[in-house]
Amino acid sequence: MEPLATLEVEPIGWVRNDISDSQGVTWEEIESQVVIEERFSEALEGLEEFSHIIVLFWLHRKKEGPSPLKIRPEMREDMPLVGVLATRAPVRPNPIGLTVVELLERQGNTLRVRGLDAYDGTPVLDIKPYLPQGNLIEKARIAPWVKRLWESL
Amino acid sequence: MEPLATLEVEPIGWVRNDISDSQGVTWEEIESQVVIEERFSEALEGLEEFSHIIVLFWLHRKKEGPSPLKIRPEMREDMPLVGVLATRAPVRPNPIGLTVVELLERQGNTLRVRGLDAYDGTPVLDIKPYLPQGNLIEKARIAPWVKRLWESL
Repeated sequence: MEPLATLEVEPIGWVRNDISDSQGVTWEEIESQVVIEERFSEALEGLEEFSHIIVLFWLHRKKEGPSPLKIRPEMREDMPLVGVLATRAPVRPNPIGLTVVELLERQGNTLRVRGLDAYDGTPVLDIKPYLPQGNLIEKARIAPWVKRLWESL
Repeated sequence: MEPLATLEVEPIGWVRNDISDSQGVTWEEIESQVVIEERFSEALEGLEEFSHIIVLFWLHRKKEGPSPLKIRPEMREDMPLVGVLATRAPVRPNPIGLTVVELLERQGNTLRVRGLDAYDGTPVLDIKPYLPQGNLIEKARIAPWVKRLWESL
């Protein structure tokens, strides 16, 4: 095994919206701006040719200190206790969030997107185009608890 | 704008396969092991209920020094010069790779996966279940150069 190393990332931009509390929020409908730092503007050229993009962001509201390795999804008592890496919960060893969003418009270094489940001020780490070849899995099997969760929402 | 900050991530595991050179490799067919550190074993519980997972990994072969903001995909002269964030190229501001892979088996803290385009020894940052709701976009529009690239492979 390689020695443990700390790896460094830096924000390349920030999420801008009105959301600072998730209560009652339907994230799928939320429009946000992703404002990329000007020094990276050039790196966005051509992104507007894609209808959907993958946003990697820093889950910056994670509490300090060790986080649990297992959780009940959505903190619901009717959900099983599962490993955090088997969920999309924000408590995870490296607090990196991943969401596929609709790219509505690019204006220079500002992206207007729909469906980003990130609070105002969230640091953005990476933007990638969504590619059906590789990202579109027609018949993915999922855990029964996920189906049950979706049906109840 | 928030002040620039450096954020730290750490490897939660490592990729194990025979691949140290991509020449002639058909990544889609490659089987790899993702060996998660034992202290995170519990965090994997329940992952085997998913057929596909998203692997975030560190593109550790990135050269030191500033990387280009625009590239020609696959370094091909017949491809347009586009921003790196409009591609999936490994040269990007934060060297984080993302691949959806088939999870063939979990044995404790070892995942056997197919289709991971990462060299032996690659640090793994995060594992997430692939969720059709959110990750399966039926009609994503892509740049014409991507279609052209795929047709020529």
